[in-house]
Formats: sequence, C-alpha cells, structure tokens
Amino acid sequence: MRGAVLHGPRDIRLEERGEPKIALPTDAIIRISATCVCGSDLWPYRDTPPLTQPRPMGHEYCGIVEEVGSAVRSAKRGQFVVGSFFASDNTCPNCTYGYQSSCQHKEFVGDAQAPWLRVPLADGTLVTTSEVPSAELVPSLLTTSDVFGTGWFAADAANVKPGATVVVVGDGAVGLLAVLSARQMSAARIFAMSRHEARQKLAREFGATDIVSERGDEGVARIMDLTSGIGADSVLECVGTPQSMRQAISSTRKGGYVSYVGMPHGIELKGEELFYTHVHLHGGPAPVRRYLPNLIKLVLSGKVNPGRVFDLTLPLDQVAEGYRAMDERRAIKTLLLP
Amino acid sequence: MRGAVLHGPRDIRLEERGEPKIALPTDAIIRISATCVCGSDLWPYRDTPPLTQPRPMGHEYCGIVEEVGSAVRSAKRGQFVVGSFFASDNTCPNCTYGYQSSCQHKEFVGDAQAPWLRVPLADGTLVTTSEVPSAELVPSLLTTSDVFGTGWFAADAANVKPGATVVVVGDGAVGLLAVLSARQMSAARIFAMSRHEARQKLAREFGATDIVSERGDEGVARIMDLTSGIGADSVLECVGTPQSMRQAISSTRKGGYVSYVGMPHGIELKGEELFYTHVHLHGGPAPVRRYLPNLIKLVLSGKVNPGRVFDLTLPLDQVAEGYRAMDERRAIKTLLLP
Repeated sequence: MRGAVLHGPRDIRLEERGEPKIALPTDAIIRISATCVCGSDLWPYRDTPPLTQPRPMGHEYCGIVEEVGSAVRSAKRGQFVVGSFFASDNTCPNCTYGYQSSCQHKEFVGDAQAPWLRVPLADGTLVTTSEVPSAELVPSLLTTSDVFGTGWFAADAANVKPGATVVVVGDGAVGLLAVLSARQMSAARIFAMSRHEARQKLAREFGATDIVSERGDEGVARIMDLTSGIGADSVLECVGTPQSMRQAISSTRKGGYVSYVGMPHGIELKGEELFYTHVHLHGGPAPVRRYLPNLIKLVLSGKVNPGRVFDLTLPLDQVAEGYRAMDERRAIKTLLLP
Repeated sequence: MRGAVLHGPRDIRLEERGEPKIALPTDAIIRISATCVCGSDLWPYRDTPPLTQPRPMGHEYCGIVEEVGSAVRSAKRGQFVVGSFFASDNTCPNCTYGYQSSCQHKEFVGDAQAPWLRVPLADGTLVTTSEVPSAELVPSLLTTSDVFGTGWFAADAANVKPGATVVVVGDGAVGLLAVLSARQMSAARIFAMSRHEARQKLAREFGATDIVSERGDEGVARIMDLTSGIGADSVLECVGTPQSMRQAISSTRKGGYVSYVGMPHGIELKGEELFYTHVHLHGGPAPVRRYLPNLIKLVLSGKVNPGRVFDLTLPLDQVAEGYRAMDERRAIKTLLLP
C-alpha cells in the first residue's frame, strides 16, 4: 500500500510502505475511512526537530475493522471504530485516572495517513459505534480521534464551568474546537483570539461571543479591558510557543486556570513570575481516549459538527498539497481520503 | 518602640523604629501578643536578594487591638485579632475568588517583629476571636497568620482529598504544617521527606505515616517504590528551590497535583518536560485570609496544636539569636515575645 512519508523539510511523499499485519494478539488492522493532517504534523514538516530518517506520518484515524488478533474481544471485523493517537490499554493506573495518553503501555500511532493501519492494544484503544455511520458523519467522527478531543481537553483542563469567561489562544483547528467545547460546557463568554477572517467566522459559528484580533501584550490588554481588569476564569493555550503561553497566563485572573495542549516549543516558565500570577496550570498530550465515547455520542446526536474544521478535502495521493495548504495557512485543516 | 531591623547579611538588630500611628481611616494599631521568624525571613537574612537599605522585619502577628481608624467597623479596641502578611480589602474581585494575597489593594505587612503594629485595611485583614484567648493558645493562633495558613494552602492547592496519597517536600515549619493540614483533610498516606530527627518526630506527631530521608533522584525513586511505580496523588512543594520543585513534579502520578508555596528561587520549568508529566500545578503566596476563620476555629477547638512548630521561645530583644538558631537549623521556628 502507499502511505505518506516525510523525507525532509516540506518534502512529503506518498510511497510504498507495505501492508500492515497483525504483529501481536492484541492488534487490530483497520481500513481507514478518513485521515487528516494535524497542526502538530507541521512541526516536523517544517524541520522542527530535524529528521534523521524518513518518517511515516499521520495519527488521526477512523475506519472499518478488517482483522483482529486472537486476544481482541471488543472490536469485530466490519465495525466502525475511532481511536486516539496514543494506543493505550485503558486498564493501567494512569488510564484508570483518565490519563490514557500516559498509559504505562502507550504506543504512538504514527502512520495513519495510509489506506490501512495497525492499531496496537485494540481493546483499550478503539471505540466502536453500534452502526457504520453515513459518509457525512465521517469527518466529524474523525475529529474525535485527536483535534476535537484535544480541544475538549483544553476546556476541561482549564476548568471551564457554566457561566465562565473563557479565552482561547490560537485559531488553528484545536483552538476552534476548544471554542466549541467551551460552548458545550456552557461558558458565558468565549473570546477567540484570531486575526484571520475565515477562522473568526468559524469561531463564531462554534460559539465564540467575541473575537479579539490583537496579539501579545496588546491582546492581553484587550482581554483585561473586556473583563473589567480582572482577567478570564479559564484560558486555553492551543499554540505551544513562548509568546502564546505568556499571553495565556497574563490573560488569566488570579486563581484562574490555564490549560496548554499545543506541543510546547521553547517554553520556559520562571518560578518567580508564575508564583505571583496565582494561576492553575494543567496540560499535556490530550487523553483523548477518556473523552471518545462522549464525543462520539455528541457527534452522532447531531448536536455538534466539529468536521466543519475541514475546509479542504483531498484524495490521499494529494497529501503533499494537503500539507502545503495548511503550512501556508490557506487551509485550516485537510481531510485525506484513501 | 524597639523593633527588628535587618542591616546586612546575618546582621539583625533590635532598634528604635518609632511608634506606629493611624495613617488612614481604615488602619488599626495592635499590641503584638506574639510574633515569630519565618523561613522566608532567612532569604534576605542570608543576603538573597542583597539589601539596598536597612529593612524592618516580621510579617506574622496576632495581638490586641489598641486603636482603630474612623472607618474601621469590625475590630474594636481590646479584641484579640489575627491577620495575614498581606493586608487585603476582602471585597475586590480577587479577594472574592479567594485570592486575598493578590487583593487589588494588597499591602505587605512587613514590620511585625515589634511590640506594636499598624495593620492597613483592618476590616478586610483582621479576624477577631469572641474572647481574648489564654496564653497557651497564643502560639497556635499565631501560626494561622502565615505558616499554618501556608501549609493549609499547600494541601488545598494540591487537591488533597480523603484517601489520597500525599508527599510533602520540605521539613521546615510550613512543610510540617502541610503534613498536619493533609491529615486534617483525611489523606490516607502522608510521606514526609526529612532527614532531621526532631523534624521527623514532629512530622509523625502531625500525621505523617511514612518518613522518607532520601533526597533528589533517590527521593523520587523511593516514592515511586512506595506507590507501586505510580507516584503520589498530591505533592506539596514547601521549599522553593529548583531541586525541590523537580523532586516534587517527578514524585507525582500522571494527572496528579503539585502545589508550590515556598517563594521560588531560580526555578525554571521547561514546557516540553512539564507537558509529559501531566501534572496539575498551582501555588503562589498563600491566601491565608481565606482560611483564617476556619483555622482559628480549629485551634480554639483544641483539635490541632500547630504551635508545636515553635521549639524556641525568646524575648524580642534576643531576635538575633532567634534568627541564628533557625539559620543554623538548631530551631525549627522561633517565637518572639515583645
């Protein structure tokens, strides 16, 4: 089969990778219904960190079970399934506490931009739907695999409560779905930080009450102005740079909550400074598996349409254009159909 | 009157400072019943940061109201009162959220090692008792002014819940009272990190179930060993150094809670590392005022005896020996009687 392989800076190719096979009795093989390009894929695509060897890409997936190992009990051939980018046993202490992305036996699923995929620890990792969903629902179901789950974790980790004032830093697909998540959690005001018209529009559609186009210190000043000088209850940092993190912390009220879900690059927090902000801080790789059953239910109920983040759909063999469009910010997120 | 003044490294003197006077209608003047030396006083005493001019010292106090400004409604002459090291109006938004140490009008009370003290924002700052307490209760009541309130915040900020596994890093008076606080919050296991016999004994008396004398990586390994490789639910960092902070974060389970209440010195947290620990982080200058009514009640009920941290009592004119004994770790905490 032909899957996506990154060869160097901005050099991604579809090439022969060989069919995945059951390697352990706990594996499953799925036929991918849809996969996509993640904002975090752009880091290695842009050479951060530099590659040492060609690397298969893709960690967001949903599809139909083709084959299962002898120890797999839950998923059966023909069922539609979604899983997270970290395979997890869902039974170890870390999983039991709801941190499946820190599972003691976690395995990164990193070759999903392909027609077929081996999923380790299938019983712990995969969530099945009772029926095979219609094609229109597939994009939204695909988002639960990472981007929606990560946006939801951003809101949950920042303790978004009914009536809360929320700031979302970052207007990528995760930030936009963090807006949607905060809306679902009944936040009263949701400030989306964005200076990009199409993203502003989608943020409003997802539930943002205000758009703030200023950035950095000016962005902080605007949030302070809009919150009577107090700061927001919950600030969701969905970028991962020193600038965005500083902006997030400075926009938070004393005793408020900052979550960070974008893979950090170059962030250093000084204890002395953090001490006087009085914020709560929580984040990390989103434990998507914790939220999957609920998010799948939300999508199937028709209450949310997170698949709206896909503004570009391409066949898998145009994967290079899919990355390029996101790299150049022409697309929010690219859906790939094998 | 003669109060404590720091002149340089390890040079503290009792000297004439003039009587405090009502400066604003919201002030109160109190006659100090007892004051003490704080672990944080040792930082400037040891020249970190270096002094630029002589500095009055002391921020822990309780006493009898002598005089109040014309706007003061709650405290009356003759009443016994306790206040926090940050005066606060207790009505601004930050106070309302429970972060009085970030009050929009906060003032540091920094000259309490003296017979008399001016307390700003008296209505917001001072908590009165219904009767003047007996002399035996004064040391324990004094601890609610900072050290007990800070230990309590350490436990609260680290989300200590009934049945929790708790680690306390630091065997100073704050760490020891963090042990007592975790015990009051019904933690199941409390690991006190200490290699000092007198402090280990007091930690056990306050409710520690285990003493861990290893430090750094060895201390982390021991905690991992004692928690089946999972880490503790709540880790209370009561020191403020890079080593103690690293030890605290590394001893916490995925999704667990780290609080930090010791004034940080030289701590830098790397975003990339913090991300994968999956910990919750919260701390800052303890909002002691939030806890004062409850902690005073606890002391008056006789259920706790936090005054046990004072293992040296001196008249105020021996303040220099009081500092010296703590600096040399001969005393856990020095009580000073004016």
